[in-house]
Amino acid sequence: MTREISALVFDAYGTLFDVHSVTALAESLFPGKGAALSQAWRAKQLEYTWLRSLMGHYEDFSLVTAASLEWAIASLHIVAGEGAKTALVDEYRRLAMFPEVATALETLAATRPLAILSNGHPEMLEAVVDHNGIRERFRGGILSVHAAGVFKPHPDVYLIAEEKLGVPRALMGFVSSNGWDAAGAKAFGFRAYWVNRAHAPAEELGFPPDAVVSNLAELTALVR
Amino acid sequence: MTREISALVFDAYGTLFDVHSVTALAESLFPGKGAALSQAWRAKQLEYTWLRSLMGHYEDFSLVTAASLEWAIASLHIVAGEGAKTALVDEYRRLAMFPEVATALETLAATRPLAILSNGHPEMLEAVVDHNGIRERFRGGILSVHAAGVFKPHPDVYLIAEEKLGVPRALMGFVSSNGWDAAGAKAFGFRAYWVNRAHAPAEELGFPPDAVVSNLAELTALVR
Repeated sequence: MTREISALVFDAYGTLFDVHSVTALAESLFPGKGAALSQAWRAKQLEYTWLRSLMGHYEDFSLVTAASLEWAIASLHIVAGEGAKTALVDEYRRLAMFPEVATALETLAATRPLAILSNGHPEMLEAVVDHNGIRERFRGGILSVHAAGVFKPHPDVYLIAEEKLGVPRALMGFVSSNGWDAAGAKAFGFRAYWVNRAHAPAEELGFPPDAVVSNLAELTALVR
Repeated sequence: MTREISALVFDAYGTLFDVHSVTALAESLFPGKGAALSQAWRAKQLEYTWLRSLMGHYEDFSLVTAASLEWAIASLHIVAGEGAKTALVDEYRRLAMFPEVATALETLAATRPLAILSNGHPEMLEAVVDHNGIRERFRGGILSVHAAGVFKPHPDVYLIAEEKLGVPRALMGFVSSNGWDAAGAKAFGFRAYWVNRAHAPAEELGFPPDAVVSNLAELTALVR
């Protein structure tokens, strides 16, 4: 399987960067509610990307992130000022990278072009990539759904990567910790690698991934 | 506002029928886990309708309901046989109606045509309507997204109701307990009534409803 992969495309949030690294700031702002806020926020953020896409009312990811934070704060009966909300949204520019990512990317980048394909608005996406010092690994590009005006898992999103990298979809490996994103990529025609960091049950969407790994270090053993 | 509404269209699951009435059977099958299973199942069911719609891989709601149950069972580490799964999915044909619904529909049907517009497959939808004995209230029709091959909140779904009832969208009232469904209907151009049964925070999707009520009895006071 592995020799046939000409390029690897990575999801960003949850795959390279830990969206729940906002928990520390959330906990310091709202003691006892940090973890619950982070969970509610992330779930609603994804929900809004799907709903806005289906409604035909795309809005950039930084605005969706701020709107979903508003909902999450209200759902937990938190009283938050504008300063706290702005600080939380700004954390998306400084998300921590999962510990094995830097080494895994260095290994993988040696043998084929790597790219990012993310829901993130280009500006916030480049900020978090630079914050973590990994821009040079992605000579395939740092690609955003923004160009398509719709969020994952719409096929127009995966088409961005195929066209930018000039690699036929059957030779493209797509890596995501989000099972539904791996399913979307698989439905499009990519080779899909699901990084099941949370040991979650397999999604029942009809498009199982080609392989499942626990983290990106395992991926380097699989894709040599 | 009220005199301008020529017809009223109702969401089914969560609005007329209580999806969590499956909890009793779930609890009897898996003691201590009934409520958690019902919550996880419903959340995943909606998620799969959105994801399959975005992927361009619509599948009928009864299959999405069965697939999301598989995931929910696995997520709670429940061991379930085929008989238990079939029994739970079959409960969707016998969901309980919320207590005020029968009287409210009788009142509302006296002054304008009512219809249902639901994600449900036509066959399962008609079963639960007949189980609750309210078919005669809906002389506007019992309409399913199945005709559009995509789930809510895609605009093609709301178009089904506009075309079937022959009422211009600005004169159509749309009633849903799902805030995102009310937002989708509002974005399409319907008058949207959100039945906020759960006292949830308002959705931050950019299309607030025209009115918010706690149940359908309150709606009858609003739409005379």
